[in-house]
Amino acid sequence: MTQSRAVVLASRPVGEPVHSNLRLETRTLPAVGQGQVLLRTIYLSLDPYMRGRMNASRSYAKPVEVGEVMEGGTVCEVIESASPSFRPGDIVLAHSGWQTYAVQDGRSLRRIDPARGPVSTALGVLGMPGFTAYVGLVEIGRVRPGETLVVAAATGAVGSVVGQIAKIQGARTVGIAGGASKMAWLRELGFDVALDHRSPAFRSELSQAVPAGVDVYFENVGGAVWDAVFDHLNDFARVPVCGLISQYNETSAPAGPDRLPRLMSAINTKRLVVQGFTQRDFVSTHYAAFQRDMSAWLSTGRIKYREDFVDGLDNAPEAFFGLLKGRNFGKLIVRIGDDPTRPTP
Amino acid sequence: MTQSRAVVLASRPVGEPVHSNLRLETRTLPAVGQGQVLLRTIYLSLDPYMRGRMNASRSYAKPVEVGEVMEGGTVCEVIESASPSFRPGDIVLAHSGWQTYAVQDGRSLRRIDPARGPVSTALGVLGMPGFTAYVGLVEIGRVRPGETLVVAAATGAVGSVVGQIAKIQGARTVGIAGGASKMAWLRELGFDVALDHRSPAFRSELSQAVPAGVDVYFENVGGAVWDAVFDHLNDFARVPVCGLISQYNETSAPAGPDRLPRLMSAINTKRLVVQGFTQRDFVSTHYAAFQRDMSAWLSTGRIKYREDFVDGLDNAPEAFFGLLKGRNFGKLIVRIGDDPTRPTP
Repeated sequence: MTQSRAVVLASRPVGEPVHSNLRLETRTLPAVGQGQVLLRTIYLSLDPYMRGRMNASRSYAKPVEVGEVMEGGTVCEVIESASPSFRPGDIVLAHSGWQTYAVQDGRSLRRIDPARGPVSTALGVLGMPGFTAYVGLVEIGRVRPGETLVVAAATGAVGSVVGQIAKIQGARTVGIAGGASKMAWLRELGFDVALDHRSPAFRSELSQAVPAGVDVYFENVGGAVWDAVFDHLNDFARVPVCGLISQYNETSAPAGPDRLPRLMSAINTKRLVVQGFTQRDFVSTHYAAFQRDMSAWLSTGRIKYREDFVDGLDNAPEAFFGLLKGRNFGKLIVRIGDDPTRPTP
Repeated sequence: MTQSRAVVLASRPVGEPVHSNLRLETRTLPAVGQGQVLLRTIYLSLDPYMRGRMNASRSYAKPVEVGEVMEGGTVCEVIESASPSFRPGDIVLAHSGWQTYAVQDGRSLRRIDPARGPVSTALGVLGMPGFTAYVGLVEIGRVRPGETLVVAAATGAVGSVVGQIAKIQGARTVGIAGGASKMAWLRELGFDVALDHRSPAFRSELSQAVPAGVDVYFENVGGAVWDAVFDHLNDFARVPVCGLISQYNETSAPAGPDRLPRLMSAINTKRLVVQGFTQRDFVSTHYAAFQRDMSAWLSTGRIKYREDFVDGLDNAPEAFFGLLKGRNFGKLIVRIGDDPTRPTP
C-alpha cells in the first residue's frame, strides 16, 4: 500500500485562514482498482478559489469537508495503471489535491504532452487560470479594438493573461498590481499602463490612465480597486466577475454606507453587464479553441507568463496564505516531487 | 400664435418631488415651420423614468432643464401640418411633453392607426412600457419553459406585461404588488402567484411561492423587494435591471451594513447576470417584432392591460407623485384633451 503525505482541512477558517486550519498527515492509499491509476504528484497549483472551498457555505462547487484532503489541480506522473488509457511514466493533469500520491479514476485525467512546453504550464497559462481569462473575455468581456480594459491582480495567473489577450484583441490595457517589480513586469507584458494600487495617488493615477473611461473591468479582486474603477465605467461596460480575492476572508458585511443602491443605479442608467462566471461551465464549448489559440500565442511569443515556485508540500499552507495577500508574483505552484521532463534548477 | 398650457420644471427636487418643483404656465408656441406640425395633446403618459429627468445628474438621457417643459410621451392629433407625411386629423405618437399643444418635427412622430384599438395603448401595452417588458425578457431575461420569474410593480405598465409574456413563454410567474384589488388583478392576468409586499409575512410567502428558486427577477423596483428575492436566486439567474423606483428619491447612500460585497459574491458564485437596459437601445432591432407579437397577443386576448386615467393637465403633478408611491393601478395616463377616436366616458 502506498503512503501519501497530505494537507487536510483540520477546521474551517473564521476570516483569514491560519496554520491550525490545515494539518499535514500521512494517509494510506487504497489499492488501484479497475480503471484507476496511482499518481505521483509533481506540481500542485495554488489558487484563490481554494479559500471558498474551506467554507461550509454553498458555492459553485461543494466545500472540502473537515478531515478531507485539500482540493487542487496537479500535474502528476502515472506510477501504476489499471486504466487502458494510461501507462506508467505518462504525465497527466489531475485534480488530486494537496498530497504526494493519489489514486484516481483514469477518466478524470487529461494527458499532458511534455514536447509542448514545461508541463507546469498545464496549471497556469495553458490550464485553468489561462482558460478562465480566455472565456471571461470571449464570453462576457467581449472587448473591441480601441476599447479600454482594466484588470487588477494583473501579474497573477489570470490577470496577466487577461491583459495580454485584450491587447492582442486591440484594446488599451491598464494593469493594476502592487510594488515596483510587478510594475516592471506589467510593462514587459505589454500593458499600456501599469498602476500600483499601493500608490497614495492611485485614484488620480487611475483617472489619468483611462481618459476615455473603462469598457471592460475584469473583476478578480473587489474591494478598493472595484471602488476606484466603478466611477470610470462607460455606458455598456462589461464586468466579468471572476473572483473577489479581497473579500474572501470577510466574516460579515462591512460597515455602511450601503453601496448596493448606487451600484444598481449605475447598472440601470449605464446599462452595465455585471456577470459572474467560472471556467468549468465552458469547458465543453470553449476548451479546444482555448488550447489552440493559447498554444499559438505562446509559440509566437505573443503571450508571456511567469511562474512562482515554492518547494515542498510542507510549505504549501504558508504559500497559500501569501497568495490571499498578493505576495506571490506570477502563477503560484508548489513543487511536490521531481519533474522528470526537466531537471530541477 | 397658439397658446399652450404646460407643466415646466420649476426647480430640481431634493429627494421626493413636491408641487413647488413643477409650475403650470402658458407659453406661446412658435409658428409651424417647414416639415413641422402643430399637435393637440390627447393623452400624456406618466412614467417612473421622469423622476430621473428632473435631476441634473447624468443618466442615459439628458435631464430636463429648469424652466423647460417636462418631458413625456404623448398621443396627439395633428391640427396643422407643414410636413408631407401628416395631415390634420392624423393621430400620432409624439414625445411632446406635459403640455396641451406642441410644435414638433414630423420626423419625430409615429402614426397611430385607431382601427387597431384604443389609441391610448400606444403609451402603454403597445408602446414604450410594453416594449420595455418585451426587450428586457427577450434580450436579458431569456426565460425558459418551467423556469420561475418574479416581477414587482406587477400591475404596472411594465410589470404586468413582463408577467404575461413570461407566462406565454411557459414560465411559472410570481407577481408582487400592494393591496387586495391589485392581488385580484394579478390573478386575472394569469400570474401563478400574487404576493402582497405589504403583508407582514411577505418574506415567508415569497419563499413558499418559489420552491424551485428564481431564475429571472425582472428588476423595476429595488429596495426591500430586491432584498427579499435576492436569497432565492438560482445559479445562472438573470436580473434585467429596468428601473429602481424605490430609490429614485434617495439623496444619499443608505446606512450600512454595506451589501455590495454580498451582491458581488452572489454574482460570482451563482454566475448571475445583472444587466441594465433601456428600450431605446433596441428600437431599431426589436420594435417591429414587438409590434407584431403584441398585436397578436392583444387580439387573441392572451395579454390584458389596464389603464389608469387622470383628467386634466393640472392634475398631472399629483398623479406623478402618486406613481412614485405606487398609488396608480395600471398604466397611468393623463387625459389632456378630447379623444376624437372614442367618446369620453
